Amino acid sequence: MTSGCKKLIESGTKIIGVGRNYAAHAKELGNAVPKEPVLFLKPTSSYLENGGMIEVPHPLESLHHEVELAVVIGQRARDVPEASAMDYVGGYALALDMTAREIQNAAKSAGLPWTIAKGQDTFTPISSVLSRSMIPDPHDIELWLKVDGEMRQKGSTKDMIFKIPYLISHISSFMTLLEGDVILTGTPEGVGPVKVGQKIDAGITGLLDVYFNVGKRQVTKN
Amino acid sequence: MTSGCKKLIESGTKIIGVGRNYAAHAKELGNAVPKEPVLFLKPTSSYLENGGMIEVPHPLESLHHEVELAVVIGQRARDVPEASAMDYVGGYALALDMTAREIQNAAKSAGLPWTIAKGQDTFTPISSVLSRSMIPDPHDIELWLKVDGEMRQKGSTKDMIFKIPYLISHISSFMTLLEGDVILTGTPEGVGPVKVGQKIDAGITGLLDVYFNVGKRQVTKN
Ligand SMILES: [Mg+2]
Ligand SMILES: [Mg+2]
Ligand SMILES: [Mg+2]
Repeated sequence: MTSGCKKLIESGTKIIGVGRNYAAHAKELGNAVPKEPVLFLKPTSSYLENGGMIEVPHPLESLHHEVELAVVIGQRARDVPEASAMDYVGGYALALDMTAREIQNAAKSAGLPWTIAKGQDTFTPISSVLSRSMIPDPHDIELWLKVDGEMRQKGSTKDMIFKIPYLISHISSFMTLLEGDVILTGTPEGVGPVKVGQKIDAGITGLLDVYFNVGKRQVTKN
Repeated sequence: MTSGCKKLIESGTKIIGVGRNYAAHAKELGNAVPKEPVLFLKPTSSYLENGGMIEVPHPLESLHHEVELAVVIGQRARDVPEASAMDYVGGYALALDMTAREIQNAAKSAGLPWTIAKGQDTFTPISSVLSRSMIPDPHDIELWLKVDGEMRQKGSTKDMIFKIPYLISHISSFMTLLEGDVILTGTPEGVGPVKVGQKIDAGITGLLDVYFNVGKRQVTKN
């Protein structure tokens, strides 16, 4: 019951990232645990299909990996209460919220948006979409990520600070969620750099896995 | 040669805002003139058609108006050089980049994204799309905005710091621009609050005008 991410890439209109949604990860970056979800946007042009190459743009030599559970919206959602929020979930996927940490840190210091740090092409590698029935309890699954075979992140979604119904309710109080929109629910601890030439494997234990190579971005002027 | 904004609202996948692109406006908010364009994202769910109501969310009593020239992308653009960048323009529109300034200022101080300050439903009122031939020189048009009949903003696009070919080239070096994507090119000076109950008229002198009422956002729980 999986469907390719092509449809998502073609029909989605936004990706909403949630920052600092696992206490241990907030701490590892020296951030306070937030009272409200930290929300940012990524463009759908940043999607990358399973097996694709994550591109590290000049002059960077690495990007940070953040493995996350992606919630795919199944129908238009606006001002949805928590009690019925799960009705708006169309499915789930595994995604990587690739982040140019140096650029993000500079943006944070300057009070500027994270657009370039988070939104570049190939910065949102994503798996095929699992139907809702395949994940009866999305707050009790294990996410993992390896770099060159070495485990870097392994965490349970039960450690999310803001749970999925709250996130859908909260986000839909600000903006209409549309079919195919994606919420990236935050990353467990263990984020770190992945360099040009390395390989990422990641998955949801027992359900799916994906892999991505990391390469230097090549610019071909038109 | 105009076409409704419905198609844009249905087919666009992103809105890229450019901050501080007029020196006089950067100054009025106490910001330095940037060395590189300040880029942020707004979701397409924030579009509002001509004649619609801009919604001020609780507990705010006003939003800031920013009148801007919107560039509508006509075809897929990636790593486009400045010299051919104008080939990727499909048309132009007049847009308002509505901003919850208090929320933006708090986000800036905390090093957080501007998503909630800029991205809420109705925060991107936009006109119908003018074909490219109707604006032979997009760097020599006058934008204006009135609140309750009083002129608040009036500026020429010749005062843009980063011109349209540079913006398209620069943005497309980070992310693929797709047909229907929109670049908001920044606002001239004169931004300020518009309150619940007020009316905005805005236009491109000699070419088009739009109006929007400002009301309190009503929450209807589903
Ligand atoms: Mg993340
Ligand atoms: Mg942003
Ligand atoms: Mg603006």
